[in-house]
Amino acid sequence: MSRKVAIIGARMTKFGNLIDKTLMDLLVEPSEILLDEYKIERKKVTSVYVSNLLGEISSRQTAVATALADYLGITDVAAERIENGPASGASAIRYAYMDIASGNSDLVLVAGAEKMRTAPTEVVTDLVSMMSHPEVEYPSGATMPSLGALFARLYMQKYDVKPEHLAMVAVKNHSNAMKNPYAQLKKEITVEQLLGPGSESFNPYVAEPLRLYDMSPMTDGGAALILADLDTALSYTKNPVIIEGIGESTDALALQDREDPTELKAVRLSAEKAYRMAGIKPEDVNVAEIHDAFTVLEIAISEEIGFFKRGEGKLAVERGTTKIDGEKPINTSGGLKARGHPLGATGLAQATEIVWQLQGLAEQRQVRNANIGFTVNMGGFGSNAVSIVYRRY
Amino acid sequence: MSRKVAIIGARMTKFGNLIDKTLMDLLVEPSEILLDEYKIERKKVTSVYVSNLLGEISSRQTAVATALADYLGITDVAAERIENGPASGASAIRYAYMDIASGNSDLVLVAGAEKMRTAPTEVVTDLVSMMSHPEVEYPSGATMPSLGALFARLYMQKYDVKPEHLAMVAVKNHSNAMKNPYAQLKKEITVEQLLGPGSESFNPYVAEPLRLYDMSPMTDGGAALILADLDTALSYTKNPVIIEGIGESTDALALQDREDPTELKAVRLSAEKAYRMAGIKPEDVNVAEIHDAFTVLEIAISEEIGFFKRGEGKLAVERGTTKIDGEKPINTSGGLKARGHPLGATGLAQATEIVWQLQGLAEQRQVRNANIGFTVNMGGFGSNAVSIVYRRY
Repeated sequence: MSRKVAIIGARMTKFGNLIDKTLMDLLVEPSEILLDEYKIERKKVTSVYVSNLLGEISSRQTAVATALADYLGITDVAAERIENGPASGASAIRYAYMDIASGNSDLVLVAGAEKMRTAPTEVVTDLVSMMSHPEVEYPSGATMPSLGALFARLYMQKYDVKPEHLAMVAVKNHSNAMKNPYAQLKKEITVEQLLGPGSESFNPYVAEPLRLYDMSPMTDGGAALILADLDTALSYTKNPVIIEGIGESTDALALQDREDPTELKAVRLSAEKAYRMAGIKPEDVNVAEIHDAFTVLEIAISEEIGFFKRGEGKLAVERGTTKIDGEKPINTSGGLKARGHPLGATGLAQATEIVWQLQGLAEQRQVRNANIGFTVNMGGFGSNAVSIVYRRY
Repeated sequence: MSRKVAIIGARMTKFGNLIDKTLMDLLVEPSEILLDEYKIERKKVTSVYVSNLLGEISSRQTAVATALADYLGITDVAAERIENGPASGASAIRYAYMDIASGNSDLVLVAGAEKMRTAPTEVVTDLVSMMSHPEVEYPSGATMPSLGALFARLYMQKYDVKPEHLAMVAVKNHSNAMKNPYAQLKKEITVEQLLGPGSESFNPYVAEPLRLYDMSPMTDGGAALILADLDTALSYTKNPVIIEGIGESTDALALQDREDPTELKAVRLSAEKAYRMAGIKPEDVNVAEIHDAFTVLEIAISEEIGFFKRGEGKLAVERGTTKIDGEKPINTSGGLKARGHPLGATGLAQATEIVWQLQGLAEQRQVRNANIGFTVNMGGFGSNAVSIVYRRY
């Protein structure tokens, strides 16, 4: 059997419009804070994995993992970049997990970052679209919001999900973000503002039925984790977080090729794999960060990962079940929607929130009795997903 | 202890100017051939790793691993892209290795490809330069050939290496490529042609002291490997190749920051790690593919990996030691120089040649009694290197 893998700690930059920071700044800053805070000698780090999607174009940089090692003064390590669309962050954690589980490494740095606000919005929208199908989607002008809208229309029709349900997700996640000093969107909103009379100027349609406040923003940001085998982790902290399960799955790349385009099969299968590996059930999860790139996804994903029955995710939102003080808190950080969604950093930011929750460091957002956490990070438009189960030590 | 990992088989496309092939073609074709030839049911594949450097710009594609899985009709797998500059291919093998060694997967597809000939040469040269230091090299206009020239000048001066030595490497590798149906440059050359009177038009300077025939070409191409735990591998072939050791190392990113810029420390340390893991010495290696992006690198690397003493690599070239029928055959495939160097595919093409040598499939290039093989794949300009030791089963 392979050995236990633990997270020693997690840190992130504030997310937002960080025009003065370079891609390297966003990778170096959380990594340095973490190494210094846990008093980790740099020569103990034997692998550096970086998740990043747009470095070539945002920063004219490839081989960013080697660059990060160099900037940190670390040499003679394995250093590689992982790219799996917006699921790059969770994929990088998965790589670190296998590196340690296989006995190859004892202590691994994972960092992820994205600069999305330097290039014009249409350039970034185009870049992000490149993860869609290279023949039947991208050349037709499909963008992530347009695919999200196709999904939303079908899903909302099938399960009688109303615009109010989507708005309630946005309101909750904005409210959570108000309690998160690292979040991008610091603005309380109400359902009335989003949908009431005159809302079309405040909250215009982007791709009907999705409106501006249904979308995660363009974000600059970075995050980092240090992972180790459990024995090594315990030499640095009394409070590590164990990775109990990781599952990854893929679905047909193009939305049109899926048996049922309202299902997110990769999400479901990745979660099932992670639960199985961890030996837990969805009921056991106390706090989760899930991939709400669009508000509708929070509802749909909450069903796919088994938190609620199909079609009942909307009821959980209505009832406040997914609020910080609810029975099943989701996206306590503010989620992609309001914490922000710097593609390559998102999976690590999700993990950071869960690590903080399980370490009792989530301050105003702290969920009581948080023992088991869960994240799901989605790549493409549901064509790839990585789920992780975490346990408080 | 983690379990033995083996390569079931390896295939590659012909390398060259493949203007009619897409990036997906170059990934799909060798993968399909391999899956069909070894009669591997696609549902047995649980992970797909893709090495690729320039997909965003060459093909307007990210998340290419998910796309490859989809094109092959494989779903519900882990699918991630690895980018480590021109060492991406070996890094992808390393990922597959850890996936299997950790017990997570039994059967993994690794594929790599690059389209370098679609965009104008200056665009590709710029893209390739992005792996250099983002502050002290790239913005100053440093390109890989210019860094190679700086290295070559210092190294040649220190060890009295003559232009004739570099030319002899090119002549050998072109000669080997004549025997390789998959190679790009099918053209016998002579030292006289490269350096004799009138050679400046045939072999002009690119970045003095490096001339055109000291450079690897711009190449389109793809390659694929299937890896498995040894038991699974033996259910598909009697002739697997065992991965006995993998080592990765990094050096200062910028050439100017290295203690001794004539050393390739990452190459040396990665090789030492791989030898140690395999329990072998450099003397034990029967056939090697090493990263001759520039001819001078074949000589320098052959010393760093312990094949020859420092300063004596040039003697090995003079004496024909590194020819196919020599004592220490290097780059029997033609190397990056003449087989071609499609960045993301190169590490897999190196592995392919070694797998074929150890499986006895190298035809006219077959090295006698090839039991132990070795590859070293370099990222950046020597800032990252991945070495692998292979053993015939």
